[in-house]
Amino acid sequence: MLTAQQEKQFTLEELIPGGKYYPHFYPTIPQQFQWNGNRLAAIGNDSIWLIENEGRGRKSFILTYKEIEEGPGMGENRINRLSFSHGGGDEVLFYTSGGTGVYDLKKKEHRAFFSYPEKSGNQTLSPDHSFMAYTIENNLFVADSNGQAWALSNECNRGIVYGQSVHRNEFGISGGIFWSPGGRRMAFYRMDETMVSDYPLVDASARVAAVKYSKYPMAGMASHHVTIGIFDTLTKETIWLQTGEPDDHYLTNIAWSPDGEAVYMAELNREQNRMQLNRYNAVTGSFDRILFEESHPKYVEPENPVLFVRNKDEQFIWQSDRNGYNHLYLYDISGKQLKQLTDGTWEVTEVIGFDKKGENLYFIATLPSPIDRHVCSVTLKSGKITQHTTLPGIHTATLSTSGRHLLDRYSSHDNPGRIDLIETCTGRTTLLSQAENPFAGFSMPTVELGKVNSADGRTDLYYRMIKPAGFDAAKKYPVAVYVYGGPHSQMVSNRWRYGSGGWETHMAQKGYIVFVMDNRGTAYRGLDFENVTHRQLGVVEAEDQMKGVAFLQSLPYVDSERMGIHGWSYGGFMTINMLLRYPEVFKVGVAGGPVIDWKYYEVMYGERYMDTPAENPKGYEESSLLNKATQLRSRLLIIHGDEDPTVVMQHSLQFIKASIAAGTHPDLFLYPGHGHNMMGRDRVHLHRHITRYFDDFIPQD
Amino acid sequence: MLTAQQEKQFTLEELIPGGKYYPHFYPTIPQQFQWNGNRLAAIGNDSIWLIENEGRGRKSFILTYKEIEEGPGMGENRINRLSFSHGGGDEVLFYTSGGTGVYDLKKKEHRAFFSYPEKSGNQTLSPDHSFMAYTIENNLFVADSNGQAWALSNECNRGIVYGQSVHRNEFGISGGIFWSPGGRRMAFYRMDETMVSDYPLVDASARVAAVKYSKYPMAGMASHHVTIGIFDTLTKETIWLQTGEPDDHYLTNIAWSPDGEAVYMAELNREQNRMQLNRYNAVTGSFDRILFEESHPKYVEPENPVLFVRNKDEQFIWQSDRNGYNHLYLYDISGKQLKQLTDGTWEVTEVIGFDKKGENLYFIATLPSPIDRHVCSVTLKSGKITQHTTLPGIHTATLSTSGRHLLDRYSSHDNPGRIDLIETCTGRTTLLSQAENPFAGFSMPTVELGKVNSADGRTDLYYRMIKPAGFDAAKKYPVAVYVYGGPHSQMVSNRWRYGSGGWETHMAQKGYIVFVMDNRGTAYRGLDFENVTHRQLGVVEAEDQMKGVAFLQSLPYVDSERMGIHGWSYGGFMTINMLLRYPEVFKVGVAGGPVIDWKYYEVMYGERYMDTPAENPKGYEESSLLNKATQLRSRLLIIHGDEDPTVVMQHSLQFIKASIAAGTHPDLFLYPGHGHNMMGRDRVHLHRHITRYFDDFIPQD
Repeated sequence: MLTAQQEKQFTLEELIPGGKYYPHFYPTIPQQFQWNGNRLAAIGNDSIWLIENEGRGRKSFILTYKEIEEGPGMGENRINRLSFSHGGGDEVLFYTSGGTGVYDLKKKEHRAFFSYPEKSGNQTLSPDHSFMAYTIENNLFVADSNGQAWALSNECNRGIVYGQSVHRNEFGISGGIFWSPGGRRMAFYRMDETMVSDYPLVDASARVAAVKYSKYPMAGMASHHVTIGIFDTLTKETIWLQTGEPDDHYLTNIAWSPDGEAVYMAELNREQNRMQLNRYNAVTGSFDRILFEESHPKYVEPENPVLFVRNKDEQFIWQSDRNGYNHLYLYDISGKQLKQLTDGTWEVTEVIGFDKKGENLYFIATLPSPIDRHVCSVTLKSGKITQHTTLPGIHTATLSTSGRHLLDRYSSHDNPGRIDLIETCTGRTTLLSQAENPFAGFSMPTVELGKVNSADGRTDLYYRMIKPAGFDAAKKYPVAVYVYGGPHSQMVSNRWRYGSGGWETHMAQKGYIVFVMDNRGTAYRGLDFENVTHRQLGVVEAEDQMKGVAFLQSLPYVDSERMGIHGWSYGGFMTINMLLRYPEVFKVGVAGGPVIDWKYYEVMYGERYMDTPAENPKGYEESSLLNKATQLRSRLLIIHGDEDPTVVMQHSLQFIKASIAAGTHPDLFLYPGHGHNMMGRDRVHLHRHITRYFDDFIPQD
Repeated sequence: MLTAQQEKQFTLEELIPGGKYYPHFYPTIPQQFQWNGNRLAAIGNDSIWLIENEGRGRKSFILTYKEIEEGPGMGENRINRLSFSHGGGDEVLFYTSGGTGVYDLKKKEHRAFFSYPEKSGNQTLSPDHSFMAYTIENNLFVADSNGQAWALSNECNRGIVYGQSVHRNEFGISGGIFWSPGGRRMAFYRMDETMVSDYPLVDASARVAAVKYSKYPMAGMASHHVTIGIFDTLTKETIWLQTGEPDDHYLTNIAWSPDGEAVYMAELNREQNRMQLNRYNAVTGSFDRILFEESHPKYVEPENPVLFVRNKDEQFIWQSDRNGYNHLYLYDISGKQLKQLTDGTWEVTEVIGFDKKGENLYFIATLPSPIDRHVCSVTLKSGKITQHTTLPGIHTATLSTSGRHLLDRYSSHDNPGRIDLIETCTGRTTLLSQAENPFAGFSMPTVELGKVNSADGRTDLYYRMIKPAGFDAAKKYPVAVYVYGGPHSQMVSNRWRYGSGGWETHMAQKGYIVFVMDNRGTAYRGLDFENVTHRQLGVVEAEDQMKGVAFLQSLPYVDSERMGIHGWSYGGFMTINMLLRYPEVFKVGVAGGPVIDWKYYEVMYGERYMDTPAENPKGYEESSLLNKATQLRSRLLIIHGDEDPTVVMQHSLQFIKASIAAGTHPDLFLYPGHGHNMMGRDRVHLHRHITRYFDDFIPQD
């Protein structure tokens, strides 16, 4: 018999990020760690302990935040975060809201403090800690620790942007400042988006609603032009890489040669079906050579810069899915492929780094199945692959400088998270910290893993199914399908509760079975699995999701008359897509920030998967939800942030307009002032709103 | 026993304007008429008959549209409308999409044709048919019939507007061009709104959503500046009336002296509590004199220009509610009041005009009760008032030039509409045309009239109640309250079905009792009845509506647990206001285009009733719905046109934002591309959407 405590129904305030009590019910690993070269740093709230001998020795040193904060000139600055410099050493970087500092662990003194100028952002320290680059609005600056600053640009036109991320963060790009290894030079992006259309985002909370324009290049329309400058801290001069025409190509995956004299990058044509790995002279800016090309009739998508082999400056690692799965390749700087380092029907998802000698390269792989991640290494010489982690689940790791130990962060469906120290040669594992199960002692919905065959019969698709506590197979349960379904995603993996989130728990506690399945088009399953959706987004994905529905309908305990579906962004697109392609299946759908017609989506992502509207009119027609608005039979709630800069509100408004013309009746809700996702406290309201819609239109038991 | 035909349930396509079959079920008077001096013109689809002797003689003349359309230079122009010139004569004006023409009835020939230049609007012919004034965008032009044109302005700044309506159509203003009686001069408005804030209206149907800015002066903020020019068609020169400071005063109710040498207007201070009736010299522009002033601690609101007495150029009529009800006053041009012509606890709602000698003035009055309108006249000399219409209901009329006959248009709760010819001296009435009851033969909901005492116990408030066909007092019925409740309105009057509209019929057919009541603050009940709401909009109105609710709840056949409320604009404000002030009363509310906080509403209307936010902070606080969002207990659907230029969308978005912060859950729907009201086909969708919301959340019987 359950006690009241065990039967607790968790509220959304406890289950949803932003909720008042959420922090109490989110699994937290109590102790965090970092490598300081070959010392293990155990990070506390107000101090850091350094543990010698890669975590196996004595606690050698305690650094308190206070001793830094009391240093000269620190004023009110309080430490938010510390990080150790690459490769060990006695320097620690500390970050405050007012600046970044360098502290000498040995001498226990401040080496430098780089104050953040007012309105500055993107502050990036050079590797030698001599300079800090930063942006103010659209301009770029470099300063030394005395506060002397050099303006690398002086642009009044807000459409020309220096030192920031470009290409809308596609191709793995997340910033616009790239220091050379020694710190003498700095590469940076310059983006001219004056020719890009302005999308109006209206701030309705102003005294009189005010427009903030967002440069938003829509599929098939004018795109921005990117160039790359190189600033020399010695001469204080900037040269420009001669990247040539056409102007709307993509300059991605910038990397420096180890000597800081050359820049490598992956250049794509706007069509994104051909990539060149190019090298430029960073002193003169001149084009040096094409190392190699990759092309594909559908698209290529490099997301990882070249990685030079430690201690072998003439060799580098390249990641590519050219043989169908993302794998590692060894190249020399002439562009000659020396070796394919990994192979198989699995993927490398992340490269961790080399051991000290550069003999072994550590990485994360989808082994033994797409829903797992293990830490492996490959010996460059022999090609021998070693798996270093054994517990089934999701591992990520960092490597000590020597390469002798991994700091392994792990979770699995039944483990909320732990950190281990693993000896790479023996596999000897020491538990450093274990998160508690925040739901321990409560009667919780169960999460099960399973597979359904894809619509083309050729692949298994993974799902998770959440069943109410006290599940009774003789009863009939309503179903809530949660869907995403787009590229770069994986909803189902062997992490804590198979990745199931708080809303799923909430719905299961309300008596729903929750079902989440990764259809074809999603990530980590190889190229064919992903690019089968090319030029026809939404078609194959929906066919696969219908296989999941058929499976659900085959279950005796599922009430097929009481099914709902919910998703956000691509999942919002999928939600509406499902309702319109397969009317009558779902009673209810809730679509958040949905793409409605890919012609309103951005150039980079949109044209990769759909080509341009002019090149692929039939595909755009087929994937558009506008011309299917007449098919709406279910209750559909569309939710949008009215300042969404990613999937602009035009999508939802145009669908509403099409529905009105078609005589159908979707519902709509807006989150004023919010962007693509509702963050903070309002996220609880959002999930209450979503849930209420299910309550309203799915009959209670 | 009812036949299937009699039991027909009308659909919204039949009941709502814009519906496919609406024209078949809207009562239409089959024959229309106009005066041509002392001839009665019977207007057909392709011709007009003139009937001599004020409609009592023979049909003297047939004019076919074709004979005009085949005239010289007409090309593809087809006649949309004809109108006869004032005071009779042999000229008829005809209007086509391409221009306005003057046709000589006697000679059967075209006299003139004024083509409309491309993009022109506000075309206004001079009384002598010599010139046409028109606007193109923000500029003003005058042309003669040869097409020679004079530009009265050449303004590139779109914030400066010539020849168009100003003061946002308040004070009875509907245009910006005013020809003098002889046609020599033309007065026109010039409005400088460069200092007024731009409200962004986003057109989401553009390829990339585009902003159209609307100059929208919000309460307490900078307002536009208006001046008045006088164009002389002889000299082709423009002079400006010296209307002086402050610039944001109101220049309203422009009228010409009969000799065309002076302009009279009602000037108000921005506070709208003081009005001067002023005269200007139209030749020099100089200020001539203040004729008189009116002021009130709350507000004054002149809406009718001076009207000169026929044949007595030194006397004019002035309308004012200064003694508590709108009445007629006789003045001389020195500003001296000669006589109060009408008096009593009723109002003059419209002035029809003088008889030929100028001895009697005809007007419409709220006699014998506020819900009726009768045609009356007053003999200027004796003050004797004669009522010319007898059938109880709503009359409007036009007078023959002689004054011997009225063309009376009439409807009442049981008469869908008719036109009578009435001899003014004898009252002899001849039926000219009678509309058929479009619902004849069907079993229809009944409409009843009644009164409820106001919350202050001092006044009766009129309501109409629609009861389902086959009403059974032993049953319990759900209720839909429809509300407007704002100034200038009267929902309940003795017109066809007491003014009940198609949605009310629809709801009654679905089994609802529909209830509509005019609370204090609405029109035609005198000044005190209206201005009791001053500085506290929504308070007294809601108290009165609650009296209606209490009445409903007292009825044995009303199910108090199943009540909903719906309203638009001010009625949208009232709907939400009722839900928040009196939670738990209504299960459901649907608010369209609601005002949420009067600080977001315009200067002219807003400051009249609320003063500025700085002058009346407590009143704004009390009337704002933002700080009451936490009170929401009912289901509330808010509907807004996303390009609403009248009640801007900011209202609804801010309420949604406040509700999210308060943890309450209104629903929202937008009509993309629509303004303050949904017109055309989409109006049917709107009413289906509103009805569905009642269906969703008011339990069925």
